[in-house]
Amino acid sequence: MEVRLEPAVVRGFRFAGVAAGLKSEPGRQDLGIIVADAPVAAAGVFTTSRVKAAPVIVAQEHLRSGRLQAVAVNSGSANCFTGKAGIRLARASCAALASTVGCGIQLVAPCSTGVIGHLYDLDKYRAGIADAAATLEPEGLTDFANAIMTTDTHPKIVSTMIGVGRSRVTIAGCAKGAGMIEPRMATMLAFIVTDAAARPPQLRTMLKNILPRSFNAITVDGDMSTNDTLLLMASGAAGNAAPAGRDLQNLEKAIGDAAGALARELVRDGEGASKLVTVEVRGARSEADANKIARSIANSPLVKTAFFGCDPNFGRIAMAAGKAGVDFDPERLDVSLAGSKIASRGALNVGALAGAAARMKEREFDLTLDLKMGKASARVTTCDLSYDYVKINAEYTT
Amino acid sequence: MEVRLEPAVVRGFRFAGVAAGLKSEPGRQDLGIIVADAPVAAAGVFTTSRVKAAPVIVAQEHLRSGRLQAVAVNSGSANCFTGKAGIRLARASCAALASTVGCGIQLVAPCSTGVIGHLYDLDKYRAGIADAAATLEPEGLTDFANAIMTTDTHPKIVSTMIGVGRSRVTIAGCAKGAGMIEPRMATMLAFIVTDAAARPPQLRTMLKNILPRSFNAITVDGDMSTNDTLLLMASGAAGNAAPAGRDLQNLEKAIGDAAGALARELVRDGEGASKLVTVEVRGARSEADANKIARSIANSPLVKTAFFGCDPNFGRIAMAAGKAGVDFDPERLDVSLAGSKIASRGALNVGALAGAAARMKEREFDLTLDLKMGKASARVTTCDLSYDYVKINAEYTT
Repeated sequence: MEVRLEPAVVRGFRFAGVAAGLKSEPGRQDLGIIVADAPVAAAGVFTTSRVKAAPVIVAQEHLRSGRLQAVAVNSGSANCFTGKAGIRLARASCAALASTVGCGIQLVAPCSTGVIGHLYDLDKYRAGIADAAATLEPEGLTDFANAIMTTDTHPKIVSTMIGVGRSRVTIAGCAKGAGMIEPRMATMLAFIVTDAAARPPQLRTMLKNILPRSFNAITVDGDMSTNDTLLLMASGAAGNAAPAGRDLQNLEKAIGDAAGALARELVRDGEGASKLVTVEVRGARSEADANKIARSIANSPLVKTAFFGCDPNFGRIAMAAGKAGVDFDPERLDVSLAGSKIASRGALNVGALAGAAARMKEREFDLTLDLKMGKASARVTTCDLSYDYVKINAEYTT
Repeated sequence: MEVRLEPAVVRGFRFAGVAAGLKSEPGRQDLGIIVADAPVAAAGVFTTSRVKAAPVIVAQEHLRSGRLQAVAVNSGSANCFTGKAGIRLARASCAALASTVGCGIQLVAPCSTGVIGHLYDLDKYRAGIADAAATLEPEGLTDFANAIMTTDTHPKIVSTMIGVGRSRVTIAGCAKGAGMIEPRMATMLAFIVTDAAARPPQLRTMLKNILPRSFNAITVDGDMSTNDTLLLMASGAAGNAAPAGRDLQNLEKAIGDAAGALARELVRDGEGASKLVTVEVRGARSEADANKIARSIANSPLVKTAFFGCDPNFGRIAMAAGKAGVDFDPERLDVSLAGSKIASRGALNVGALAGAAARMKEREFDLTLDLKMGKASARVTTCDLSYDYVKINAEYTT
């Protein structure tokens, strides 16, 4: 089953998003909650930054049990670099939702996104939680997705359905994040829920397996957030037993497809992005080598400005490949850009440049390097670097 | 003696710069030569990229003897990713200058800068060499510096004088490079000449010692060129003996000061740069740790756009420090920006932000982090990321 860019009802979960006054722009949604009908199996992955936000620290602690019943996410403040007061605020935020839901504090995961270094107003937050709890509904995913946005231009939502055993299960997810994105293990904030049954260790294994080809295979600006969080929750409300064998593989694949689609949506809505470019490096000696070169190209400001300018700039691509610290023979290198083979065995095909330049005007294209050194490959999805990236980030204020 | 941003006569060397028609803009200077009166002691450092331009390969080969008599530099084409034809072209270019000067081919170092993947026209090059040879003069450094520019907005020239033994020696240098700059060991192209006497091994040691605090301590965009070259040549025409002891130290310090001033000029003229920011990390456990954090901040697009926007964005600075992969305690961190202490012991000083924002409007300011983990420190000089960076790089064409 195909992944759709639209919400779906996932049995066992309700969602809400409200304007709690946590963002400086009045009336903008800034507080989202997910509430399960009962404690569900859950797993998460988080930023690997040395600077972890308070909600990340608290969510990691709460996830040790492998069970969650609710998630509370605010935008407007990242609650990062806020010391012990930040930790207290994250715990108090969990308590506010826990008392509304009637579950233990440890069953609530907190997430925050927005400006770093500031606390948010707990009274407004508590009032917002009460509002949100009153508007919870199975169809509330879009409101939730709206409430967690910062510089995103639109909410990012995916859903898909598959058969697991004799049950039809639904997977839905949403994510936010448009800048400060080069997830080493998760993007800024992403949530995937399913009504399939699965045990917490199964969910943890799935997250580990799906990351390299979804949230870890994208970059907007090479910057890793202090708040990166991906949560996966399974209610089991579809009625299947905890899956095994082929069923488990199918479920993992479907969740991976949903995660991959969400990750691509993040790049498509990257700050100032006008183009989505998939950089593939083939013929490497190892996947690690392929990944280093793909990432070096995908993060190079010179390559990204050339994408923006529809300039099939082979030289910058070669430069970025060369600086990646991976041994390869430049004289074997083939490069295809937007469907045109612009270089063969290390030499530029001048005749192919006009075709590449014309097709680079499209919204999406691929860049493929074949090193011809081995059999490993890797892909990284990136966007261009535009005037709007500078505008958004020079004007977005502390 | 202070380093001046102006040319000087260095006994034993003559310079020229001409328009040879190698650049697409007619009439623009694009071929520069340095010719010594006789073979001189010389040393060089080059790009560490896996993709090395043909002139880099040939120059490295010619420098093994520790002697050079001439340098030929063209802009307009980098002669990189040009295979065996590129190597032949670099050798033919050396031959053209060697026959004019009357020295061996091995005594000529070739350098190229410009678009990657294209050869230049050898007939035009030869005619340009003849023109340049006819206009060589001791005062020709400014013409030379002009001829080697690509997206630079002005030539970068430094000079200084010191006493070595009983001689008064002069050091002069110039450099080009405004993008594709995060030299791991040298910037795009830089040349330093002195009339001091020094043996080739002394010059090599000096280069190694001065790099970490000059060309290796700057970044414009984190991109390393395929053509990075720094050449140091000593004619001995000032009449001193090869220096030793205190004299050698003084000479190295003066050459280091000249290199540092040139490196800062490169950043000041970084593509689209409107601000020069020195990022200092103190209190690290090791210089390597300090350098990793300083470089992570200096290359972060989010930090650099905040510099452009005069935004004292503590959160982005903390994010970039956190992603550097260095262990530190966020709750000990002090941060000063443009003279204001914006964070103490990991907490934001909200009252200090307005002062920092006001002073960030200036052309130059410092950002200092104190980790309070140890005694090591490092500095990296960077620039902001502006609309003009995008403009220059989206429009500069292959």
